[in-house]
Amino acid sequence: MKPDLSALDAYLDEAGVDGYLLDADSEASDQYYLSGFDAPDPFVTLYDGETHLLFPRSLEFGRAKRESRADTVERYVDFDHQSKIEEHGTEDAVSYVLADFLGSYDVDSVAVPPRFPLRTADGLRARGVEVTADTDGVVTEIRATKTDAEIEHVRAAQRANEAAMQAAEDLLASATVAADDTLEVDGETLTSERVKEEIEVTLLRHGCSLDETIVACGADAADPHDRGSGPLSAAEPIIVDIFPRDKATKYHADMTRTFSKGEPSETVREWYDLTERAMDAAFEALEAGATGEGVHDAVCDVYEEAGQPTLRDDERTETGFIHSTGHGVGLDVHELPRLSPTGGDLEPGHVVTVEPGLYDPAVGGVRIEDIVVVTEDGYENLTDYEMSLVV
Amino acid sequence: MKPDLSALDAYLDEAGVDGYLLDADSEASDQYYLSGFDAPDPFVTLYDGETHLLFPRSLEFGRAKRESRADTVERYVDFDHQSKIEEHGTEDAVSYVLADFLGSYDVDSVAVPPRFPLRTADGLRARGVEVTADTDGVVTEIRATKTDAEIEHVRAAQRANEAAMQAAEDLLASATVAADDTLEVDGETLTSERVKEEIEVTLLRHGCSLDETIVACGADAADPHDRGSGPLSAAEPIIVDIFPRDKATKYHADMTRTFSKGEPSETVREWYDLTERAMDAAFEALEAGATGEGVHDAVCDVYEEAGQPTLRDDERTETGFIHSTGHGVGLDVHELPRLSPTGGDLEPGHVVTVEPGLYDPAVGGVRIEDIVVVTEDGYENLTDYEMSLVV
Repeated sequence: MKPDLSALDAYLDEAGVDGYLLDADSEASDQYYLSGFDAPDPFVTLYDGETHLLFPRSLEFGRAKRESRADTVERYVDFDHQSKIEEHGTEDAVSYVLADFLGSYDVDSVAVPPRFPLRTADGLRARGVEVTADTDGVVTEIRATKTDAEIEHVRAAQRANEAAMQAAEDLLASATVAADDTLEVDGETLTSERVKEEIEVTLLRHGCSLDETIVACGADAADPHDRGSGPLSAAEPIIVDIFPRDKATKYHADMTRTFSKGEPSETVREWYDLTERAMDAAFEALEAGATGEGVHDAVCDVYEEAGQPTLRDDERTETGFIHSTGHGVGLDVHELPRLSPTGGDLEPGHVVTVEPGLYDPAVGGVRIEDIVVVTEDGYENLTDYEMSLVV
Repeated sequence: MKPDLSALDAYLDEAGVDGYLLDADSEASDQYYLSGFDAPDPFVTLYDGETHLLFPRSLEFGRAKRESRADTVERYVDFDHQSKIEEHGTEDAVSYVLADFLGSYDVDSVAVPPRFPLRTADGLRARGVEVTADTDGVVTEIRATKTDAEIEHVRAAQRANEAAMQAAEDLLASATVAADDTLEVDGETLTSERVKEEIEVTLLRHGCSLDETIVACGADAADPHDRGSGPLSAAEPIIVDIFPRDKATKYHADMTRTFSKGEPSETVREWYDLTERAMDAAFEALEAGATGEGVHDAVCDVYEEAGQPTLRDDERTETGFIHSTGHGVGLDVHELPRLSPTGGDLEPGHVVTVEPGLYDPAVGGVRIEDIVVVTEDGYENLTDYEMSLVV
């Protein structure tokens, strides 16, 4: 896949800098996107209209030449690393190598992402290179808009996600309820950990991976980032949030359902129905030209009108609707755009989650999440999974 | 687990700075180690003798108070974020919040790790805070020496690793050889992907995760970082390198074996025997007081005496022994100390891999790797898995 980097060219023009520089391993999605190369250790990518890679050692050299999208691939050794160590010491030698590397492309000034490593920046500045951290990361911004091929990658990951959700729901449905209200399968207590294992094995069998699945019941579910642990109980909301990465393409999907084994409390039922309405309101607002803030406001309106606390209404609340409405999904499971108070314009090709929810330790949590792609006049829902509370 | 941070206190004293600052999510192991908190989005940790956490939003606030090791937990909102946005704009408000947060602990100067985010550093500098990137990262250096509890975590992960390696070896052993020399199981071609799936499912069933297993055969195996793909063949070396993370403790293990279905070429057999001898030489050299460089040299000596190219002998070689001898293992799968040309003093409690290997696209690759803990007078091998080439 060759990304469209015309926005990066325009950015460099406008910022008046010679190039865009990355120093990261390919777990950093900007690096993977710009270099087209997958490596576990940090390397440098310079974009100046062409793409140039620089590796500390020879280890990745051959593979980078074969697999990456780069126009040139070089090593420290190609810039007299050893003699620079002798002259300047091990610590400073790297900045002299990097400065020579940039100099060989007539690059005197670079923009870098906000999380660019400080030591590299300070080293380059000491060698006279101008280094400026750009605001949100222009490559991160470019990645927000997906090509058709990228949307297909997300769709494929979402199919695996649905298989995993089905495996979790089937396991919950097959459970019996013990005298103390805990769930049992084959005579053993059913735990969050057991359901997560079922989910993750299913994902692996479908070419995806994830090791941080959320299966959170009762008080655990009242914290949106609690992954959940221990026995699951009947008549309580169980939040199942699965966000796998396709191992081949590296693109993610993301989906949440809330289940209850048997009818839950009236409050949970009300929350579930209200959250479905909040979701409908978000979908109603979602289209190219709307803002992420507008979609988030539509959700807050529904919750606030029903008397639920929101962060919009009270920035210190720890109950109610205490997160944003959604986020972009792609190489990162959390990326741009934001459906939040700071969410900007939505464009066709933005892939976002819509995931309203309500939380209170005294009740538990309810969250429902689909993944969709923004279109000119609305959205296409990439999710094919029923919303149904009671299993 | 409470880490021993006396070396960090000493470092701050010596460097003459008021505190150590991190800005990262908990995938950054220094952050997880210092904060004792697991969160998917970046947050700030200040260490000034006590540990102070700062979160952008309220989302993680309650859980951080419950789960982290920090002495204080605060949010942007506790430092008038909203009025700072109104006064200084969204972009600059964060640096004003951070400066106030540091100021509330009388911290005017901080050391930060080399990969600390540039924008945060530049923002703090603009507010008059002195920010210095330390050399290798003092917290990273502290993490190199493991407590007994940490060694037990690695040992537990290694037991899972051995179960996964056994599953892979059993699958290779059960294969039959087709007319074109490819391996088959149950009438289907046996691929790298199929063996990796078996490994990763076994790891999940043992509470560990990994999605980058290496199962590399033939030319793939000649590149130490190629993860391998496609059909596996008889009489060729198949490198199986597994480095799982225990999901509960977050500590890793690491082990490599090279297998051949049926007797491989004479060259591969020679390489295997030579690599076993290189490994013995490394073990002979390994003890507290030795250096990582010394252990690496012992391996290079064996290979060079046998006429094999090494990076020590030729920094541009792409065949022969083209990586370092080993690396530390803990919260990161690659961490300090280094068994390499830049490897410093080894200390009791260092957990390292020993993994010599030889590579050439015309032959394939051979690598053998154990994981061991350095002791006063030698090492304890944490690996319990036979070395045997032919399955």
